[in-house]
Amino acid sequence: MKNIVIIGASDAGISAALRIKEIKPEIIPTIISADSFPNFSICGLPYYISSEVKKWENLAHRTADEIKNAGINLLLEHTAQSIDTGKKQLTIAAKEGDLKTKGYDKLIIATGGLSVKPDIPGLNHPGIFFLRWIPESIAIDEYIKKQKPETAVIIGAGYIGMEISEALTRRGIKVTVVEFLESVLPSVDTDIGNKIRIMLMKNGISIYNGISVHSIDKTNGKLVIKGSDNFEISGDMVLVSVGSAPNALLGQSIGINTGIKGAFKVNLKMETNIPDVYAAGDCVETWHTLLQKYVYLPLGTTAHKQGRIAGENAAGRDAEFAGSLGTQSVKIFDMVAARTGLNEKEAAQAGIKPVSADLETWDHKVYYPGAEKLFIRVTADRTSKKLLGAQILGSYKTEVSKRIDIFATALYHGITVREFSNYDLSYTPPLSSPWDPVQMAVQNIEKKL
Amino acid sequence: MKNIVIIGASDAGISAALRIKEIKPEIIPTIISADSFPNFSICGLPYYISSEVKKWENLAHRTADEIKNAGINLLLEHTAQSIDTGKKQLTIAAKEGDLKTKGYDKLIIATGGLSVKPDIPGLNHPGIFFLRWIPESIAIDEYIKKQKPETAVIIGAGYIGMEISEALTRRGIKVTVVEFLESVLPSVDTDIGNKIRIMLMKNGISIYNGISVHSIDKTNGKLVIKGSDNFEISGDMVLVSVGSAPNALLGQSIGINTGIKGAFKVNLKMETNIPDVYAAGDCVETWHTLLQKYVYLPLGTTAHKQGRIAGENAAGRDAEFAGSLGTQSVKIFDMVAARTGLNEKEAAQAGIKPVSADLETWDHKVYYPGAEKLFIRVTADRTSKKLLGAQILGSYKTEVSKRIDIFATALYHGITVREFSNYDLSYTPPLSSPWDPVQMAVQNIEKKL
Repeated sequence: MKNIVIIGASDAGISAALRIKEIKPEIIPTIISADSFPNFSICGLPYYISSEVKKWENLAHRTADEIKNAGINLLLEHTAQSIDTGKKQLTIAAKEGDLKTKGYDKLIIATGGLSVKPDIPGLNHPGIFFLRWIPESIAIDEYIKKQKPETAVIIGAGYIGMEISEALTRRGIKVTVVEFLESVLPSVDTDIGNKIRIMLMKNGISIYNGISVHSIDKTNGKLVIKGSDNFEISGDMVLVSVGSAPNALLGQSIGINTGIKGAFKVNLKMETNIPDVYAAGDCVETWHTLLQKYVYLPLGTTAHKQGRIAGENAAGRDAEFAGSLGTQSVKIFDMVAARTGLNEKEAAQAGIKPVSADLETWDHKVYYPGAEKLFIRVTADRTSKKLLGAQILGSYKTEVSKRIDIFATALYHGITVREFSNYDLSYTPPLSSPWDPVQMAVQNIEKKL
Repeated sequence: MKNIVIIGASDAGISAALRIKEIKPEIIPTIISADSFPNFSICGLPYYISSEVKKWENLAHRTADEIKNAGINLLLEHTAQSIDTGKKQLTIAAKEGDLKTKGYDKLIIATGGLSVKPDIPGLNHPGIFFLRWIPESIAIDEYIKKQKPETAVIIGAGYIGMEISEALTRRGIKVTVVEFLESVLPSVDTDIGNKIRIMLMKNGISIYNGISVHSIDKTNGKLVIKGSDNFEISGDMVLVSVGSAPNALLGQSIGINTGIKGAFKVNLKMETNIPDVYAAGDCVETWHTLLQKYVYLPLGTTAHKQGRIAGENAAGRDAEFAGSLGTQSVKIFDMVAARTGLNEKEAAQAGIKPVSADLETWDHKVYYPGAEKLFIRVTADRTSKKLLGAQILGSYKTEVSKRIDIFATALYHGITVREFSNYDLSYTPPLSSPWDPVQMAVQNIEKKL
């Protein structure tokens, strides 16, 4: 019976263990978790900060007991200190400092990611936070309760920055967002980001784009952020959310090849170059289906898929990760922004000749109460006439997130623009139109090809 | 320049004309409409009956002027009386009785469907209605306003019966539904229909299943419905909704081959056996992608697709209808029921060995407010391990209709159960989980294969 050890108890690690149990219930995988918060929904942290989730404990996908009861050996507050790949043995430190060794037949490294700490002076002042794990969330919540900040500055306008700008606004804090790029949510095209910026401003958030932050000082009890073009703003708290990087030190120490940002290079079986060592999740490079190359794209959905594949292969099967399309959705106040595949900007960067068309239309027949406008941009390859990607903006109630998934499903199969109209999608007047808006948006691009 | 004539101004006819204008703007197609209500949203009629739509005029997809301004010759209140396929000429009667002839190069018959009138005595009493077109809707609305019925009996529990049961309830009328089959909404599996029945009963609707209606009498001002097993119930109004049949007489008169229920036989180009005569919409048989045979499946979405193909081909291109998966969704009170592909019952009838698995889970992470339960049944082919179909029940807010469309898109591409987990679907805690419920439901069936 195989001895499988997994380092990391977040999305990828737990997915690997659960998949092992599904296909080989007799195996008892060991998971080593540095903290005491296994299998938490990291993506849910903003909703604890906002107080929409009252107890952080509720953010657990599963409790430690549920994981153990599934037949998994879960070592909490244990840190994998070193790996001897010759002996196939780990040295593990318990919280109290005791060291022990543990052998493995197959090892899965799922050490996740880290918040990028930008190279600016003053990051250690009290009141400055990063957000990635439960302890940071608890610290932010406690700071808000005790210090009662009236103003907050968020550095970085990606997914986390956007979600936290809403969360802190809900806590009654006046929020300012400072972003280096020219629009918010850089994962969508700039003009779509601008639509989101306008919505944020309507919700009382101030946004400064095109600012490079140079320093943070503490002056008269306020945190003062200074940046390019004589930018200066102060706040009672600061959240820095300028991206993720792989937590890859342990793996690097055993000679795993690394690529973008230092992430582990893996093949589609999630194997590293070290025999019997797999890696998955935010610590690895991810194969992008459309770009046909590896990228660094740390996402919970991808971590689950990669973990599942690593677990399946470690347990003796032969599975391959199908790749990512970079599908993402985010709810910000009452709006949802979603994307899949390549946007106009990314396609052009990849040397593809993109053509895009925009459609603004009702989410359902306008005669039925509650219809709201959806904005859909579809991007296609001018040469192959295949769909490349889609971006959708709309209200929370307009099925934006599952509409983007129709595109994601279509992209997986390499659909052409023309064939997209063949899909037999559902229609009832309160929820769609005889051609769903996603099909109207694609028909719209046909005219340009 | 081609002279294209289209008989019928509902979904298929208008779609054909619009497609002709898109690809050959110089062609001026003629549409002959027997009534003065072109391009109305037939699927919206229940919402006029319910008063959610205040003016029936709002149900128009486009006004007559908009159609004319698109460069289409629209003849309202004109009836195609006969067709001379030798001379390629129609005889058309205007409302005032004047006859004229009109030649064609290509003819598209889109005469739609009719309400099935069951063979029971008493169908002509005042207060008994069918629902298919605008005039019937106006008559029902006027009857409710003038006669103030307190009770209504709906015969037939299909889509229309379900929607009207809600509509009349919203008008303050006590509704009883009488259905021949053992559950409501026969397009879903019986036990799923029973879940809908329970929801209807909670909304104050009485349901009698397994009843064959034998007669309707008028006694003391009440309509009395009698049926099998000494069934008897009375009401102030009756709606009969026991299905659709093709309106095919004109086409039959020129020798178009017919099949199921008398619907026109067509090929995938939407050509009939008569040269230069196409047909599309509720008057034709429809190719079912999964059954690989023709069925009678009158749906608005299909009519649009078939009309578009007929128009495209009549205009000189070469397009083929890709077939239908029978995708349908319906909102009944706060619930949405949706289906695509084959359900358990249909697969078994088709001689396929189906295997189904049910999943009841939250539409999004339960820690985020507003999570509601979704019920998903997935059916797969035990032999090929391909997905066959899905049925979803859930609240109006849980993206049921676009979740079924993920399945519809997958079915179009003939996905296997195993490969379905590869889809890179979107996730954010307020709208999904790291594996979307549709993927969890399919993973659930993997264990049974």
